[in-house]
Amino acid sequence: MYRAVTAHPEKHFTGSETVSDIVIGMSDGLTVPFALAAGLSGAVASGHVVLIAGIAEMAAGSIAMGLGGYLAARSEHESYLSERAREQREVEEKRDLEIEEVRDVFRSYGLTGDTVEAATQGIISDRERWVNFMMKQELGLEEPDPKRALRSALTIGLAYVAGGVIPLAPYALNVPLNRALLISAALTLVALFIFGALKGRFTGGSVWRSAFQTLLVGAAASGAAFLIARAVSGTGGA
Amino acid sequence: MYRAVTAHPEKHFTGSETVSDIVIGMSDGLTVPFALAAGLSGAVASGHVVLIAGIAEMAAGSIAMGLGGYLAARSEHESYLSERAREQREVEEKRDLEIEEVRDVFRSYGLTGDTVEAATQGIISDRERWVNFMMKQELGLEEPDPKRALRSALTIGLAYVAGGVIPLAPYALNVPLNRALLISAALTLVALFIFGALKGRFTGGSVWRSAFQTLLVGAAASGAAFLIARAVSGTGGA
Repeated sequence: MYRAVTAHPEKHFTGSETVSDIVIGMSDGLTVPFALAAGLSGAVASGHVVLIAGIAEMAAGSIAMGLGGYLAARSEHESYLSERAREQREVEEKRDLEIEEVRDVFRSYGLTGDTVEAATQGIISDRERWVNFMMKQELGLEEPDPKRALRSALTIGLAYVAGGVIPLAPYALNVPLNRALLISAALTLVALFIFGALKGRFTGGSVWRSAFQTLLVGAAASGAAFLIARAVSGTGGA
Repeated sequence: MYRAVTAHPEKHFTGSETVSDIVIGMSDGLTVPFALAAGLSGAVASGHVVLIAGIAEMAAGSIAMGLGGYLAARSEHESYLSERAREQREVEEKRDLEIEEVRDVFRSYGLTGDTVEAATQGIISDRERWVNFMMKQELGLEEPDPKRALRSALTIGLAYVAGGVIPLAPYALNVPLNRALLISAALTLVALFIFGALKGRFTGGSVWRSAFQTLLVGAAASGAAFLIARAVSGTGGA
């Protein structure tokens, strides 16, 4: 066997999961801080304010993404366990109905007659196996791994901060604001392209397409933020 | 049958998918603009700057989330189709190996002997059915729906903007900055709690837990943004 039968949807990742989390976190972390800084550059006079806003965004965004992702994964795991407990009750209390559901699964694969019956008897002869079969076939659910979720959330959160450093660093230099914006844009667009390509590689898609898509999202978000912030600042007293 | 056999993982949502997207987008959209505005309030003197930064963040965040989510879903669909094409080739070119993999799937469910053989023959008697079976059983993949992805991305992006309006509105009022921060915090914490509860209801988890978790993420992100922005502003000339 050259591929595992019990594979999870993640299995088409061709690299290690941690590297993939880093790449995803960094390419996302580049986008919003870059766009925010570009937007503010069009609207406020001070590079220091842009820097503070960018750092506040990185703190807020990475915590929202990391902590939020972790708590969501924990809830998902508990939700899986409660669905499983429900399925377990149903297998006991509505035995005939659940047996018919096993038959329906095999019929949906095109099996007929005695084969359906033999396969169904095979499944229902073991309670645990039956419940796992129903969870996967009927509900499309596989048990999530909460440890992996914690590591993944931390990695993505930290990588988000690391990604955010790239567009913000030029605003910490002692250069005029529009020069800082230009350096930030040049650095970030190159970085978006590279991280987009790496993201494509690690998520198994096309490398070039992923590179251009990541670049497009970053450019669209920052272009919109720039134009909107400038329009808003024109109407007030900044 | 009271539950569909071909259900997707989303099926445990108890409300309509669009309502659930709105709630998810709004509760996420509340968090980062609120945290950013709170962070900047501790570091810059002008409510107008806070408002511009918040609006720029909403524009950047909603485009990154909406467009990014849409493009990711489209890539995922194409990746599904390319995996499916590969599986189709393998079924033709490595027929014996792939038949053995079907047997392995049934053996992993605990079936034995003639039953495995009969079920396997049932599957491989139809090429399309065989490929779909391998996609789901071996790779854990079901065909994503690209139309749903577009609608979902648009809904979440717009709801993100709608959520961001709540924490930012007080900064548009003609009140002192620390008063605006207090009103924003009060409004947002209440809204986070309500949307967290709705999110729990629509994603099938515990309503109270989801409410408190959403509140916790918002409070942690904005607290950190506030403290970090104030620390950074103390080191410079803002």
